[in-house]
Amino acid sequence: MSDIKVVVLSADARQDTTVTTGTKAWELFKDTPDVIAARVGGELKDLSYELRDGDEVDGVAMSSKDGLDILRHSTAHVLAQAVQQLFPEAKLGIGPPIENGFYYDFDVETPFVPDDLAKLETAMRKIVKENQRFSRRVTTDEDALEELADEPYKVELIGLKSGSADTDAIAEGAGAEVGAGELTIYDNINRNGEVAWKDLCRGPHLPTTKRIPAFKLMRSAAAYWRGDEKNKQLQRIYGTAWPSKEELDEHLHRLEEAERRDHRKLGRELDLFSFPDEIGSGLPVFHPKGGVIKREMEDYVRLRHIEEGFEYVGTPHIAKEGLFHTSGHLPYYGEGMFPALDVDGMDYRLKAMNCPMHNLIYRSRQRSYRELPLRLFEFGSVYRHEKSGVVHGLTRVRGFAQDDSHSYCTPEQAPAEVKHLLDFMLSVLRDFGLDDFYLELSTRDESKDKFIGSEEDWATATAVLERVGQETGLELVPDPGGAAYYGPKISVQAKDAIGRTWQMGTVQYDFNQPSADRFNLEYVAADGSRQQPVMIHSAKFGSIERFLGVLTEHYAGAFPPWLAPVQVQAIPIAERHNDYLFDVAAQLRAKGIRVEVDVSDDRMQKKIRNAQLQKVPFMVIAGDQDVEAGAVSFRYRDGRQDNGVPIAEAIERVASAVAARAQV
Amino acid sequence: MSDIKVVVLSADARQDTTVTTGTKAWELFKDTPDVIAARVGGELKDLSYELRDGDEVDGVAMSSKDGLDILRHSTAHVLAQAVQQLFPEAKLGIGPPIENGFYYDFDVETPFVPDDLAKLETAMRKIVKENQRFSRRVTTDEDALEELADEPYKVELIGLKSGSADTDAIAEGAGAEVGAGELTIYDNINRNGEVAWKDLCRGPHLPTTKRIPAFKLMRSAAAYWRGDEKNKQLQRIYGTAWPSKEELDEHLHRLEEAERRDHRKLGRELDLFSFPDEIGSGLPVFHPKGGVIKREMEDYVRLRHIEEGFEYVGTPHIAKEGLFHTSGHLPYYGEGMFPALDVDGMDYRLKAMNCPMHNLIYRSRQRSYRELPLRLFEFGSVYRHEKSGVVHGLTRVRGFAQDDSHSYCTPEQAPAEVKHLLDFMLSVLRDFGLDDFYLELSTRDESKDKFIGSEEDWATATAVLERVGQETGLELVPDPGGAAYYGPKISVQAKDAIGRTWQMGTVQYDFNQPSADRFNLEYVAADGSRQQPVMIHSAKFGSIERFLGVLTEHYAGAFPPWLAPVQVQAIPIAERHNDYLFDVAAQLRAKGIRVEVDVSDDRMQKKIRNAQLQKVPFMVIAGDQDVEAGAVSFRYRDGRQDNGVPIAEAIERVASAVAARAQV
Repeated sequence: MSDIKVVVLSADARQDTTVTTGTKAWELFKDTPDVIAARVGGELKDLSYELRDGDEVDGVAMSSKDGLDILRHSTAHVLAQAVQQLFPEAKLGIGPPIENGFYYDFDVETPFVPDDLAKLETAMRKIVKENQRFSRRVTTDEDALEELADEPYKVELIGLKSGSADTDAIAEGAGAEVGAGELTIYDNINRNGEVAWKDLCRGPHLPTTKRIPAFKLMRSAAAYWRGDEKNKQLQRIYGTAWPSKEELDEHLHRLEEAERRDHRKLGRELDLFSFPDEIGSGLPVFHPKGGVIKREMEDYVRLRHIEEGFEYVGTPHIAKEGLFHTSGHLPYYGEGMFPALDVDGMDYRLKAMNCPMHNLIYRSRQRSYRELPLRLFEFGSVYRHEKSGVVHGLTRVRGFAQDDSHSYCTPEQAPAEVKHLLDFMLSVLRDFGLDDFYLELSTRDESKDKFIGSEEDWATATAVLERVGQETGLELVPDPGGAAYYGPKISVQAKDAIGRTWQMGTVQYDFNQPSADRFNLEYVAADGSRQQPVMIHSAKFGSIERFLGVLTEHYAGAFPPWLAPVQVQAIPIAERHNDYLFDVAAQLRAKGIRVEVDVSDDRMQKKIRNAQLQKVPFMVIAGDQDVEAGAVSFRYRDGRQDNGVPIAEAIERVASAVAARAQV
Repeated sequence: MSDIKVVVLSADARQDTTVTTGTKAWELFKDTPDVIAARVGGELKDLSYELRDGDEVDGVAMSSKDGLDILRHSTAHVLAQAVQQLFPEAKLGIGPPIENGFYYDFDVETPFVPDDLAKLETAMRKIVKENQRFSRRVTTDEDALEELADEPYKVELIGLKSGSADTDAIAEGAGAEVGAGELTIYDNINRNGEVAWKDLCRGPHLPTTKRIPAFKLMRSAAAYWRGDEKNKQLQRIYGTAWPSKEELDEHLHRLEEAERRDHRKLGRELDLFSFPDEIGSGLPVFHPKGGVIKREMEDYVRLRHIEEGFEYVGTPHIAKEGLFHTSGHLPYYGEGMFPALDVDGMDYRLKAMNCPMHNLIYRSRQRSYRELPLRLFEFGSVYRHEKSGVVHGLTRVRGFAQDDSHSYCTPEQAPAEVKHLLDFMLSVLRDFGLDDFYLELSTRDESKDKFIGSEEDWATATAVLERVGQETGLELVPDPGGAAYYGPKISVQAKDAIGRTWQMGTVQYDFNQPSADRFNLEYVAADGSRQQPVMIHSAKFGSIERFLGVLTEHYAGAFPPWLAPVQVQAIPIAERHNDYLFDVAAQLRAKGIRVEVDVSDDRMQKKIRNAQLQKVPFMVIAGDQDVEAGAVSFRYRDGRQDNGVPIAEAIERVASAVAARAQV
């Protein structure tokens, strides 16, 4: 037994330490119970790892990203052990950690039912309580094949590793089981020192099952072995695991909230929009109530654009293919465009962007420096050929309207214009109740075939965006390689009411489309010379459809008064109060308020309940006393109610909330 | 010589008359000098026609449609005679009457120049003065071929007639020369009884050249013989002829007006819109100033729709092909649609109409009779594959936005809804200064393959439209065969400022798309049964693009204040008055007025002239006195000017003209 030297790393220090040979990693972290694994020379290891001379060792806390993965991976093992206890015939597939949880695939005769999951959770809790030790053991292909002869899928994975026939499959799906290095098996050792269960696995794992603080099984679903529909269908169980009961509860609450706020569900319940199969994937239709919200959003952002000096233009949805060759979109963005259609022997394309057409408006006559910045704006409906697998509700569609602008300016004006656009965009988002932002600066990377233009121009453009982005005081996160082919961009990322981040609008700096070999845009400078303008692309909402989807989730369908499809529901207590409320409704309508009178046969309480379900911001309720007093009961959607509010005041309450774009 | 009996017809009587054999038609119309030809048994004849026993004879006045054709055809002969006088080598093509005039084609070495036309007019005037008689002579193919051996094109026409190889060509282009009956030559006989000129011609003609009251040669252009570009190019001279000098002058004035008002020309001059070749035929783009007008029109008509109980919806521009099979558009309107594009192995189409998508919104949930009429409205951009030859400016485009609505109602509600839509449409058009209308009722004809649905349903629908149409008190002109495949329609025809008629919006009664074998639309009736609604299609403007084109011509570019892209031009007399006007402009902008301050280096008079050329409705001009007095000189675009108008009053004048949609 001799001494070896290791370095213990922490966030702010390197500590040289001398230990005796045979010392395990866990001994370095005895005082930090949160550490559940070690990172040695950058590689994740069990805490039972035996230190070697010269190792640089870092503790992995359970709450870190790697720590969470390890927790969830270990919980997946516990699940698999429980499954083989309750369903001894079950054969093991793979069981990796995923975002917020894990899954494990099993080959079983009959799919799991919710009751099975409850039983499995009980069995897992018992395994956790037993405090089984995760024990790593290096093996050989031959030994492993013999040992796991009853597990055909594991056998296949070992074969994959040896044959190296399908390294992608190893890297992706099967990566948790077999790695590029030595083959290992993890034994679960119980208190009696017996192997309670084992699995082919790369690890690392928690020291013991008792270190699993909180977990839950979520659901089961069918899944093809190795994701290939030509293979056998296995049964996948999804679960989640967290460093504390509180975090698990928070996660479950977030899930519940996200489900409650799912815009596709709310869109149906509130009759806002739908996605008719007859039209096609990613092509939503807006029903009357969704149409009201969309129109309010359009009117709002159009007015804001006009106030900010933008001019409203209009262009068609198709154009000859040559236009998109000129712009560079077809060579550099062709996959995102819908295929051509043949018109009179010529190929036309649905436009995926508006800029080429705005460039034609720019160059429809000579421009003077006096006109710059010239700001063109359009609700341009564009069509993008998203893969059908990624299409999702309103947030990932194939056809959408951009609130798209192009500012043409001199290079000197560009920084101020970028700032103008960023300030404008953030102020627009704030009007929708979003106020937690960060920025992402997307630049080009080394892939020369993805980006056009000279290095100097990219450097200039990127410097402008970076400087202006920093001036906002918001966090500026780098995104190398994420630029458009024609120039760098800043995108605004906004957090919604439940803390999820959404990408909103962008500002893109483009020195390529105006160039002589593309649209050859020019302006006559003060000295009479012809100069090339810079164009700055910007969408504030990004897309109306997507933003409406995000807002639906952000507001959980309870749109603020100015956006609400029905702003006031008038509720007569009895039929004899109908006429009174028709009159109140007429007065509201005269102020531009959207009001409905519920003259159904329902009783008042039911009517109130219906208005709440429809998330109508305000109710005005009238009975005999109200009619006599010229008043209403004024009810908010949260249940607050003021009785005996004079009609004029009720109208004023509604009108001022609408005018102020109040977030009530 | 014996007696024969003829019947003389007039508008309101039949008069039996006995004349002697050999009596010519003209003898019947001695007292009606306006008569220039006769209609005998429905066929047009020269006044020199020799009456036969039993003839029913009607006088053809020069001012009638047939009379004008004869006048113009005879003038074409006079032109041809003049051409062969001045250009003896010229060979004759054909020379028919056309709308408002005539043309004649000639094979000449060099194209005609304007100076030639002036000389030809002089020669024609001399021929008219000579009072040559148009004399009809029946001939045979053989004789005619010999007689006209020097006129190769006439020879070809005779060949066509005999060979009957190309009867279509005879019926179309050459119909004025050779008909299905006997071959005739018209000699122009001068006072000496000599044949001054002759032409192969069916006639009829005026009695003499002196009966041509007023004519003018308009222009010359190249034209292929018989319209076929494989043939030789001839030179065509266009002319016009009228029953009086006044009518000719009016016509020339109308032409001048139409040219002055040509929306394509004004669109360029006023920087409203353009038709970039890079995008494609029939696909306009709207520049900022055209965008303002379009937006005002959209806002206006959308607000009106909402006031009239319509609900704003939104649908995509493409859909799977199956949708248009369901609706019937592909089988019955397929030629009007753009070809398919292949998306993920499925054929998609650009929509040519919005109704199929509105039907999907209708049936997205169960509908109750209480909801009806349900009125869905959209600015739907549609794409129609117009033949490239008929595409014209904004008035015939390939992509356009319809202010399209569909009212779903019970059959009982249909008449009231049709009336509602017609009244609404007429009131919309009146707000744009159009007030001279008639209606066209388009019904189906016997072509069974063009229309779907039962005879009874067509009869019911047609009766509803006819009754409601009549109730408007407007003229209701029948248009058999002009219906949509799914039902009859009423279209509104409006006369513009110079008396031209434009087709505006339509109301279409559709009992087919809702039917069980198409969209299977239903509502739950009061008795709980499921019933099929009627849908009524309607567009009020028709298309925004077309209506904007029509309005540009109607207003001759001088849009009323509420539509004008720039409503006020502020003009400083000297630079030191700029700031004062910036302040006035800010006050105007605060009222939502579109104002520009002309700070160019031009002198005041030039600035005023520029504002007039741009047809800006109001100018506010300021000099020292105005600054001192807090006033402006208020100038209208017609040149009227009030000096010393206090700022507040100037603002009020503008704001009230805009708010009232005044046609100033």
